[in-house]
Amino acid sequence: MKIDQYPNQEKWQELTKRPAFTREEISKTIRDIFSEVEKNGDKALLEFNKKFDSAEVENITVSIEEIENSKSLVSQELKEAIQQAKENITKFHASQQSDIEKIETTKGVVCWRENRAIEKVGIYIPGGTAPLFSTVLMLAIPAQLAGCKEIVLCSPPDKNGNINPAILYAAQLCGVAKICKTGGAQAIAAMTLRTESIPNVYKIFGPGNQFVVAAKEYAQNYGVAIDMPAGPSEVLVIADEQAIPVFCAADLLSQAEHGSDSQVIFISTDVKVFNETIEEIEKQVKELPRNEFAQQSLNNSHFILLNTIEEAIEFSNLYAPEHLILALNDFERYIPSIQNAGSVFLGNYSCESAGDYASGTNHTLPTNGFAKNYSGVSLDSFVKKITFQHLSKEGLQNLGKTIEIMAAAEGLVAHKNAVTIRLNQ
Amino acid sequence: MKIDQYPNQEKWQELTKRPAFTREEISKTIRDIFSEVEKNGDKALLEFNKKFDSAEVENITVSIEEIENSKSLVSQELKEAIQQAKENITKFHASQQSDIEKIETTKGVVCWRENRAIEKVGIYIPGGTAPLFSTVLMLAIPAQLAGCKEIVLCSPPDKNGNINPAILYAAQLCGVAKICKTGGAQAIAAMTLRTESIPNVYKIFGPGNQFVVAAKEYAQNYGVAIDMPAGPSEVLVIADEQAIPVFCAADLLSQAEHGSDSQVIFISTDVKVFNETIEEIEKQVKELPRNEFAQQSLNNSHFILLNTIEEAIEFSNLYAPEHLILALNDFERYIPSIQNAGSVFLGNYSCESAGDYASGTNHTLPTNGFAKNYSGVSLDSFVKKITFQHLSKEGLQNLGKTIEIMAAAEGLVAHKNAVTIRLNQ
Repeated sequence: MKIDQYPNQEKWQELTKRPAFTREEISKTIRDIFSEVEKNGDKALLEFNKKFDSAEVENITVSIEEIENSKSLVSQELKEAIQQAKENITKFHASQQSDIEKIETTKGVVCWRENRAIEKVGIYIPGGTAPLFSTVLMLAIPAQLAGCKEIVLCSPPDKNGNINPAILYAAQLCGVAKICKTGGAQAIAAMTLRTESIPNVYKIFGPGNQFVVAAKEYAQNYGVAIDMPAGPSEVLVIADEQAIPVFCAADLLSQAEHGSDSQVIFISTDVKVFNETIEEIEKQVKELPRNEFAQQSLNNSHFILLNTIEEAIEFSNLYAPEHLILALNDFERYIPSIQNAGSVFLGNYSCESAGDYASGTNHTLPTNGFAKNYSGVSLDSFVKKITFQHLSKEGLQNLGKTIEIMAAAEGLVAHKNAVTIRLNQ
Repeated sequence: MKIDQYPNQEKWQELTKRPAFTREEISKTIRDIFSEVEKNGDKALLEFNKKFDSAEVENITVSIEEIENSKSLVSQELKEAIQQAKENITKFHASQQSDIEKIETTKGVVCWRENRAIEKVGIYIPGGTAPLFSTVLMLAIPAQLAGCKEIVLCSPPDKNGNINPAILYAAQLCGVAKICKTGGAQAIAAMTLRTESIPNVYKIFGPGNQFVVAAKEYAQNYGVAIDMPAGPSEVLVIADEQAIPVFCAADLLSQAEHGSDSQVIFISTDVKVFNETIEEIEKQVKELPRNEFAQQSLNNSHFILLNTIEEAIEFSNLYAPEHLILALNDFERYIPSIQNAGSVFLGNYSCESAGDYASGTNHTLPTNGFAKNYSGVSLDSFVKKITFQHLSKEGLQNLGKTIEIMAAAEGLVAHKNAVTIRLNQ
C-alpha cells in the first residue's frame, strides 16, 4: 500500500500512472499463431489446445449434448441467479435502443439514421482461475438484442477437454449459436481468419490475458473491429466522513482479488475513514481465498488523503478509472463534474459487484485511462448506424446552389456537375 | 471500366474486392517521424514543413490576424454557402443528442447513462489538390456540439506558408481553438505527443494520405483513439429502369474524380439504363478538369448488370459501400434490406454531393468494407457514455443474493463479501 497524505498537484500525474506493461516481445508469437491457424485451421487449434491448455479435444465445436448436459450440471440456485441478472441486463440494454428520427434540415431534404446489427460477432471468454459466465451475459445479451445474426463464442477447454457448464448454460440462454473450445491468441486468430469449425466475424469482444489483448489488436490488421483496447481492471473509491470503512475495504478488495496487476485507489477527505479503511483491509484480506492476488495488487495501490471532494473528483478525472465508487453523502452534487470514468457507483449500497453481475449495466469497461476516450460496451457496440437521406426535386432546388458553390471552391467540378445536371433538367 | 453481365454468385466475392494497398514499408518512416517530433517538438515540425511541403513557416500556430484576414479572403457567396451547410449539419447532429433515461431494473436499483464530451480532440485536414473546408465542418461542428473543451486542427501549409482561407474561415466559425500549420504523419505525431505549440489530444479525426492513415493507426499505441480505419473513397449506385443515366453518370464521376484509387461500382437491372450510363460517362468525363484521376479510377471500376434489385442489394451488402445511391422507383421498399453501408442516398435527386457538403449528414464514413463493422462519424464519436447506478439499501436486499451466488460460482469471494458485509450490517 502506498499512502499519500495531501500530495500536491505536481505529484498527481505520478500517482495516476498505471504500472507499465510491455507487449512488444510477444508480437512475433502472435504473428506465428495467426499464420499457423491460417495454414492449418482446426488442426492448429487442436494442437494449441494440447500445448497451451493440456487438453485433448476431439471436436472444436461444443456438441448439442454438452450444451444440454450443462443445464443439469448448473445448480438451480445459480440458474435462477443468472436469469435475474439476464433480466436486468436485458432491461437496461433494451432501453438503449433508439428510435428513428427523421430531420428535415432544409425544406425537401430529409436525413435520418437507422441501426443495423453487426452481422457476425465473436465473444472471447477466458478460462483460468474464474469461469467468467457473467461476461457471457454482458456480451451475448446486447448482441442478441441488437439482432446480430451469428454469435460465436470461444473459450479454452479445461484439462478434461470441457468448458465450464455455467459458461455453456449462459451462452445457450443468450442465443449464442456456436461455442468453440479454443483459447488464447489462437481463438482470436480463428475468429479473424475462419477455420473449418469457426466462422470469421466482423467484431471481437471480450477480456483476456496479454496474448489475447495483443491478438485482438493484431486482428485489426485484417479489418476486424474490437470492443476496445484493454488493460488491467481498476477501481477508484472516493469516501467522505459518512462512508463506512468496512464497505470501502470490501469494495477495494473485490477489485484487488481480480489479479496481481489490478489497480486499487482509495481517496478520502476524512482521516478517521481513511485510517479505518486501511485497518479493515488488512483484516479482511487475510480471509480471502485469492488473498495472494489481492495482497500483490494492494502493494501497488494508492491510498490518498485529500482536502476536498472537489479535489478528489479532479484527481479521478485525471486518472479516468474503469470503476468509480462515490461513497459520499451528497453524491448527486458531484455527478456533473465527473468527466472521465467507465461506470460510476453512487452511495454506500452501490457496490461494484452489483454492476459486475446483476444490476443491468455492462461490466466490459474502459481500463488503463481509456475512459478518457472510450465508452464501455453497450447495445451501440453491436450495431452500426447508417445515415439515410432523401432530397425531393424541390429539396435539391433549395440546397443546390450551396452545394455547387462549395464543390467549386474545393475544385471538385464533378461534384458540382451532379447537382447542375439535375437543376438544369 | 470492367463490365460484367449477369455474373454468377461465385464471381461476386472477386467483384467486391478492393484494390490492395500495402502499408508495411512505410512503418519505419512513421516511427522515425514520431521519434523526431517527440525529441525536437516544434523544431521538427518546422523542418518537416520545409522538407515535405516546401514551406518556410515561422510560427506553427496560425495567428489571430491570419484568421481575421481569412474572412475577407473568402467570397461572400462561399461564406453564405458554408453557413447554410453549417446550419444543416448542426440541425442533424444536434438531433443525435440523447436524453438521460433512468431505468429501474429491480426495485431500488436504478441505472442510466450520461454523455460526456471527449475533452481534447484533434482534426486533421489534408492539403493537396482540394482545400477540404467541408471536412472542417463535418468534424468541428459535432465536436463543438458535443462540448469538447479543446479542438485542435492541423493542416499542411502551402508553398507560401499559408493555410487556405476557406479552411481558416470554417474552423473559426465552428469553434476550433487552435489551428496549426503542420501536415502528414508529423501532424498526427504532434497531436499524439504534444509539442510546444500543439497540445496532445485523446482522439484524432480526419482523412489523409497513406502516411496520415498509418500515423493514426500508430498513434493508437500511445492510447490515442481514432475516428475509424481508412481506405479510398467509394460509391455504389443501383439503378432500375426509371433511373436517369445522365444523373447516374454524374454521380459515378463525382466519386471517380476524388483520386485514382477511388472505387466506383454501378449496378443496373435495366440494359438500356446500363448502356446509356456508360455512354454518358464517356461523354461527361472529357469535360472534367480532374479527368485524369477520374479516368484512372474508372479503369478499376465495375459495371454490373444483374437480374433483380434484390440481387443488387445482396451484392451491395457484400461489398459494404461507403456511399450507396438507390436510383430506384420504390426505394422505400429496399431500405430494410440494406445491411452494410456508410450513407444511403434515396431516389433520383439525392446525389452524393448533397451529403458530401450540405444536407446535414456526416461525410466521414467507413470505406474499404468497414461499413460491415463501423458507423460513420456522428455526435457519438465525440462523446463517451458513462454508466451510473444507484442501489438503495432495499435495492441491494432485492438483488444481493443473486450477486452473492454468481460471485461465489466464479470463485470471486471478495466480490461476494462486498454484498454480504452490507446485507449483514
